[in-house]
Amino acid sequence: MTTQKLVSEIKKKQSFLCIGLDVDLTKIPPHLLELEDPIFAFNKAIIEATHHLCVAYKPNTAFYEAYGLKGWKSLQKTIHYLNENHPEIFTIADAKRGDIGNTSSMYAKAFFEDLAFDSVTVAPYMGKDSIEPFLEFSDKHTIMLALTSNTGAFDFQTLTTIGKPLYQYVLETSKGWKNSDNLMYVVGATKASYFSEIRKIVPDSFLLVPGVGAQGGRLAEVCSNGMNAQVGLLVNSSRSIIYASSTSDFAIHAASKAQIIQLEMAGLMAKYF
Amino acid sequence: MTTQKLVSEIKKKQSFLCIGLDVDLTKIPPHLLELEDPIFAFNKAIIEATHHLCVAYKPNTAFYEAYGLKGWKSLQKTIHYLNENHPEIFTIADAKRGDIGNTSSMYAKAFFEDLAFDSVTVAPYMGKDSIEPFLEFSDKHTIMLALTSNTGAFDFQTLTTIGKPLYQYVLETSKGWKNSDNLMYVVGATKASYFSEIRKIVPDSFLLVPGVGAQGGRLAEVCSNGMNAQVGLLVNSSRSIIYASSTSDFAIHAASKAQIIQLEMAGLMAKYF
Repeated sequence: MTTQKLVSEIKKKQSFLCIGLDVDLTKIPPHLLELEDPIFAFNKAIIEATHHLCVAYKPNTAFYEAYGLKGWKSLQKTIHYLNENHPEIFTIADAKRGDIGNTSSMYAKAFFEDLAFDSVTVAPYMGKDSIEPFLEFSDKHTIMLALTSNTGAFDFQTLTTIGKPLYQYVLETSKGWKNSDNLMYVVGATKASYFSEIRKIVPDSFLLVPGVGAQGGRLAEVCSNGMNAQVGLLVNSSRSIIYASSTSDFAIHAASKAQIIQLEMAGLMAKYF
Repeated sequence: MTTQKLVSEIKKKQSFLCIGLDVDLTKIPPHLLELEDPIFAFNKAIIEATHHLCVAYKPNTAFYEAYGLKGWKSLQKTIHYLNENHPEIFTIADAKRGDIGNTSSMYAKAFFEDLAFDSVTVAPYMGKDSIEPFLEFSDKHTIMLALTSNTGAFDFQTLTTIGKPLYQYVLETSKGWKNSDNLMYVVGATKASYFSEIRKIVPDSFLLVPGVGAQGGRLAEVCSNGMNAQVGLLVNSSRSIIYASSTSDFAIHAASKAQIIQLEMAGLMAKYF
């Protein structure tokens, strides 16, 4: 999917919500466990109830790999279902991959060709030649970790190096890589004040923002510091939406939670556009 | 597998060789492509021909994920085959994973429980809470990237921060994490002079060393700077062994290449022990 198409979907739906499909069998409604593929059944129900409220879905590969071959099959069915039934949705494989050049090429093949995701998240520690193989796919997007939302983000990402925090140096350096136009960045929302610094470095890039709940303030703060002329934000919510209820009508509850966020997003977009 | 058992295998076999099972269907002998599972057939032949010459096998997950569900199945069959037939072999899932805490727990479950590897490689960018879930598995080993062997290693890993290169800070910091005794580290062999610096920080840890070919000098240099009282090294070779030949007797050629390295290792061990 092109960036232009993504922006047009955001404006049409008045939403820049990404829903994280992080399916844990111990947390989904128990009645689904009797089905042949509970993970896919859960995802399908969530997708059908929420696709008009969000612009992206983001399965985190860890939750699928944990269930082995069955889990990988559920991931495959989920992305096929999305691509067939909702081609307007931007799909993100949250995989945080990265390896030496020829190995990263294999990961790119896995997520862009075999599974046909629109984008994949990658980790920057191994540098340029670990990311450029992903960027070679001109119709795909590579979403690199910059500043994450966990407490461990402060272990290395915010260390000062060459007069600036490492994550800023990572952002700046990545702009010089081949096909860097295909880059988006993960920026944790627990540190909304950092967004204005980040926008000085990557004013035009899309930022994938995890860690924003349904409660107002945080989202408004992210928008006031992080939005750009193309909106430029995909704000993710996983557990607060998909595990809103464990009753048989869980998907309706998920949709209600998603709608609260979508309405807030519509309000914020009205303010800035 | 305990570290003690690994050291005992190294001494018994006079080898600290790890063979990387990075199977690319475009590179394996063409006659295997007619089989139902060419990847597993290739791995099985390589394992049967070389297991007495090495102490570890390291499939890189990228090469399996690239082939989707079939690839994941080949990975599963390979690790099951190793665990059933060669329990004395140390197995490494070269996956370079890392995510926020609860997500890393799912990755740990995938590689330590579902696939039953002895160890997995992880990336440090997301910090402490992205690695500690792996370290909770007391009978398993977590191999963290420190200094890698690719050119991109110099983009961020060697940046000066708090008066020292980032990779040294990463090594030092990791020693303070819970169950850090279960840590090993990836240290690229293209920079053998760095080994003595690294040994000052982690004198007792095992180092997984990629990027060493069969040509003498390099391996001797790694040993003189990196070996400790328990050997403390696993030196990996992938392509130079597994793709030694593409004829029907490819496994014999792979064994010959592995034996050249094993003999060199035996010589170096004799020098230091």
